[in-house]
Amino acid sequence: MPETIPADSVGLVNPTTLHIDTPLELDCGRTLASYDLVYETYGELNADHSNAVLICHALSGDHHAAGYHSMEDRKPGWWETAIGPGKAIDTNRFFVVSVNNLGGCKGSTGPNTVNPETGKLFGPDFPIVTVPDWIRSQAVLADKLGIEIWAAVIGGSLGGMQALQWAISLPERVRHAVVIAAAPKLSAQNIAFNEVARTAIKSDPDFHDGHYMELNTLPRQGLGLARMLGHITYLSDEAMGQKFGRELRSGSIQYGYDVEFQIESYLRYQSTSFVGRFDANTYLLMTKALDYFDPAKEFDDDLTATLSGIKAKSLVVSFTSDWRFSPLRSREIVNALLAAGKPVTYAEIEAHQGHDAFLMPIPRYLEIFATYMQSVAEEVGS
Amino acid sequence: MPETIPADSVGLVNPTTLHIDTPLELDCGRTLASYDLVYETYGELNADHSNAVLICHALSGDHHAAGYHSMEDRKPGWWETAIGPGKAIDTNRFFVVSVNNLGGCKGSTGPNTVNPETGKLFGPDFPIVTVPDWIRSQAVLADKLGIEIWAAVIGGSLGGMQALQWAISLPERVRHAVVIAAAPKLSAQNIAFNEVARTAIKSDPDFHDGHYMELNTLPRQGLGLARMLGHITYLSDEAMGQKFGRELRSGSIQYGYDVEFQIESYLRYQSTSFVGRFDANTYLLMTKALDYFDPAKEFDDDLTATLSGIKAKSLVVSFTSDWRFSPLRSREIVNALLAAGKPVTYAEIEAHQGHDAFLMPIPRYLEIFATYMQSVAEEVGS
Repeated sequence: MPETIPADSVGLVNPTTLHIDTPLELDCGRTLASYDLVYETYGELNADHSNAVLICHALSGDHHAAGYHSMEDRKPGWWETAIGPGKAIDTNRFFVVSVNNLGGCKGSTGPNTVNPETGKLFGPDFPIVTVPDWIRSQAVLADKLGIEIWAAVIGGSLGGMQALQWAISLPERVRHAVVIAAAPKLSAQNIAFNEVARTAIKSDPDFHDGHYMELNTLPRQGLGLARMLGHITYLSDEAMGQKFGRELRSGSIQYGYDVEFQIESYLRYQSTSFVGRFDANTYLLMTKALDYFDPAKEFDDDLTATLSGIKAKSLVVSFTSDWRFSPLRSREIVNALLAAGKPVTYAEIEAHQGHDAFLMPIPRYLEIFATYMQSVAEEVGS
Repeated sequence: MPETIPADSVGLVNPTTLHIDTPLELDCGRTLASYDLVYETYGELNADHSNAVLICHALSGDHHAAGYHSMEDRKPGWWETAIGPGKAIDTNRFFVVSVNNLGGCKGSTGPNTVNPETGKLFGPDFPIVTVPDWIRSQAVLADKLGIEIWAAVIGGSLGGMQALQWAISLPERVRHAVVIAAAPKLSAQNIAFNEVARTAIKSDPDFHDGHYMELNTLPRQGLGLARMLGHITYLSDEAMGQKFGRELRSGSIQYGYDVEFQIESYLRYQSTSFVGRFDANTYLLMTKALDYFDPAKEFDDDLTATLSGIKAKSLVVSFTSDWRFSPLRSREIVNALLAAGKPVTYAEIEAHQGHDAFLMPIPRYLEIFATYMQSVAEEVGS
């Protein structure tokens, strides 16, 4: 709990639920007749509605990107390092919108909400959603908020993929795409990790083919395993080494299967704490959205052609120790943007934190990010 | 099934079981009153017993390193690329001994064998064994075979760690240590992957705290998950990309949770085929032996001091795309050997296959390996 909320925080915030009655046709062929999107906003929309930025979240993220929901909150939103007054995404200048993705588990329509057509939880019957589906639903939210064009669409990891997809799908509505620690598509190794996570969840006997909530249970082991594995890919070998090394929890080897090394303790804690706050069906959906993301697929795998229609300027950021989506993957995007003749700023940040670096207070990263966003603010007169 | 056995194979081979009645004190503090070691030999021991080499296996390996057990065998032993007449480990010159490690599941005493003291399967009561324990048991085998000193102790991955440990523990008995794709100890990330694998096995409801065999069941899902995850770490991102890319099994996206991408199909196949041929309790033991391996621990984490007593010359080999035990880890060994004034040959092989490269027919690797082993043969007059 923050005794007092820091001055550079957006402070106490409340989520809003938008109910949308316009049917949404999904890539999978199914249609949602209606749906809810939960979102938060920070800062003020200016008179000409030119200063709005959209924050897109990653696999396990949600709409609560900054500030606190109550004075009892132990932690602020997940991108508190980047969003707030005077920060990289300066809420004194920008109207920040952050939305829980469709299929999420924090209030937007998804597996853990009731299907209005059946009166029952969606559960595993919630349709598989894609990054382009999210862009379509987020565009409806933009319409409702009176935002014709985003000053910037911004995200890290899966969020960065959404920023890129926004620029591709709705080029007239994005001035700037900020694509951080992302990739133009998943590699076979990326998909392989997702498949192991899904197999862990699905093979948990408490998963019950996704109907665990009706049976008042949770696939704790499976979802926990998925999270443990995720954490390995979010951190670099070096960061794990620095943080945990081969330190033993009890000081000496026990020759047993309880926790021996600190890293084991950390992973078990991450597993347990995640299970209580995230939905397994949503986890499955998010990994599928990642696997399917491949905007160049419709352009004969030609990423340059894919990006040739965008109107946004881009900031692309990668981190040297990120092995989930390495700098090489960001450079694929940058090179294609350059080949398509699009303006792009690329920053490869020296950082040992791995993929998670995009959430961390790394000075050089936040400086570059802030400088870029200041120029965006000036461009839109905010 | 080989219609005819290739001329450069050792041909049909039979394993031998050695029963040892001398008690073995283990690092964990427990003692095995007696135990069996299953091993194979290829080639002939020369008159002065100077041409024997020991092959040490990795996590899921066994004593069947080369040749065929019958004309019906679909595949030869796991290191057929390296062992045989005229090959790197030339069976025309060397007497090759390959042993299933204690705690293994292919005939040597381990969790799936009967504890003579109770008349029941050891199961989870089999003691945790360490790399030094293996060296002690392999030394007993050497004694029985009349091998005072190995011309070389050779292994890849966990096998390479055994080769290194032999040179440290019994310096008078090793002329050459061949340490391939190994590391002087596991990193936090390495341990983390092992911990996820163990958690997958232990949380399978069919694991029954390790007593699954008595209950006539197997922790299929858990062991399968461990194997899937293992496979990701054995291959490089590049190798997976080249082999599978983002190829879809059915040609189009199905928007479901069945296999979509070829990589998923591959992993599921690896999972299923492994479960039928490997024991889960052994898998747990092997990962612990890996985690615990840290010969420098007794020398205040000073690897140079650790290696200062060895008398062996060494060949250390790493592969550029190996991210399980990267070239950096091999160089730690090489640098410590050099600092300790020990002769070492180091080869960093350009290879895209990842950790698995040590099992593959990579010409430059096998050439260097063969050249080194020829000099060993000449040295011992074989």
